[in-house]
Amino acid sequence: MTGYMITFEGGEGAGKSTQAQRLYEAFEREGRKVLLTREPGGTKGAEAIRELLLFGGYSFSLRSEIMAHFTARCDHVDQIIKPALSQGYVVICDRYIDSTKAYQGYGLGNGDKDLIRYISNLSNLIALQPDLTLIFEAPYDIMRERCRARQGRVDRYEQLDENFHYRVLNGFKQIMMDNSDRCVRIDAHRDMEAIHRDVYDIVSQKLFELKQ
Amino acid sequence: MTGYMITFEGGEGAGKSTQAQRLYEAFEREGRKVLLTREPGGTKGAEAIRELLLFGGYSFSLRSEIMAHFTARCDHVDQIIKPALSQGYVVICDRYIDSTKAYQGYGLGNGDKDLIRYISNLSNLIALQPDLTLIFEAPYDIMRERCRARQGRVDRYEQLDENFHYRVLNGFKQIMMDNSDRCVRIDAHRDMEAIHRDVYDIVSQKLFELKQ
Repeated sequence: MTGYMITFEGGEGAGKSTQAQRLYEAFEREGRKVLLTREPGGTKGAEAIRELLLFGGYSFSLRSEIMAHFTARCDHVDQIIKPALSQGYVVICDRYIDSTKAYQGYGLGNGDKDLIRYISNLSNLIALQPDLTLIFEAPYDIMRERCRARQGRVDRYEQLDENFHYRVLNGFKQIMMDNSDRCVRIDAHRDMEAIHRDVYDIVSQKLFELKQ
Repeated sequence: MTGYMITFEGGEGAGKSTQAQRLYEAFEREGRKVLLTREPGGTKGAEAIRELLLFGGYSFSLRSEIMAHFTARCDHVDQIIKPALSQGYVVICDRYIDSTKAYQGYGLGNGDKDLIRYISNLSNLIALQPDLTLIFEAPYDIMRERCRARQGRVDRYEQLDENFHYRVLNGFKQIMMDNSDRCVRIDAHRDMEAIHRDVYDIVSQKLFELKQ
């Protein structure tokens, strides 16, 4: 059996990470082979690049910032995700290529066509598309409130202005339209339990279909 | 006027850096607009990636190591090299894409065809080829002796075995054959003054032809 890769995508405060964790726990209780991982990061080298990008204070050019995300991703894919998939794991990944497209392509790059093409080319070089992508959506004000309530370090993307975050959210909408074969919208403006049941049902159904 | 980009390539101990510095000084004395830079590095962000790669102790997958070199390169191209070229500078760059091809593609990757294609694709994404490449060649034993006489930190490539370094040197030969339009071999098994005169004459002639 080959594995199955699910990515959780959306803006900050959409509740992705909480839901990824809950799905992981539910699958683990059922005895499934399941792996939970996140981007940017996932390996020691990728975490070091994540640290450089989010907290290093460097002014990378936008093209090189994008490539740095793909460098971390490439290590993550080669050393963690591909081996797990080849052993039949369900891999749950908190953020992946669509986040780079939304944040760097649509958010920082304003949807510039050359930049979006550059990201797609890098995506082709990485050569691993998810089987299923859940895109978490909630009204911007709700997501911002959830972020404010958080503890911990604030990274450079969280510090950017409202217009940036609107462009990111619209970017995710565009990605959803362009990839309707693998993307499913999750209404994240509900209580955690309802969202979890939704996520669990959608993914379980896909895995069930896969076995048929 | 648009600028002119010259890359200095070859194995460790071939004398590239010394010769790049001497050419830079000669051109500066003549009042030319000239910039000397090096890879991996050239910007603060790229230097941070260089540090991660050469001394960080991480085990990046080979594909991600290659992409990390291109990330640093992309920042260097966008922020230093392209602006200088557009202002008409002669840019002298100590190592560039051919080093990644020789060290990672031929040295670590044993000339694997998929890997060489992956490097070429990344090279196309960067979208800046040098106008002229000088490839410094000397017998391996001579180069190794020169390296041993050096002070300073030893990076992870310098620590690799003889077979690796032979593959790198053969890689440079292959690159020279595949790119005879822009590559010129420099016999680096001579005294510094003779090599400098050779380098100076070749580059000056190319720049003279450019003006015609």
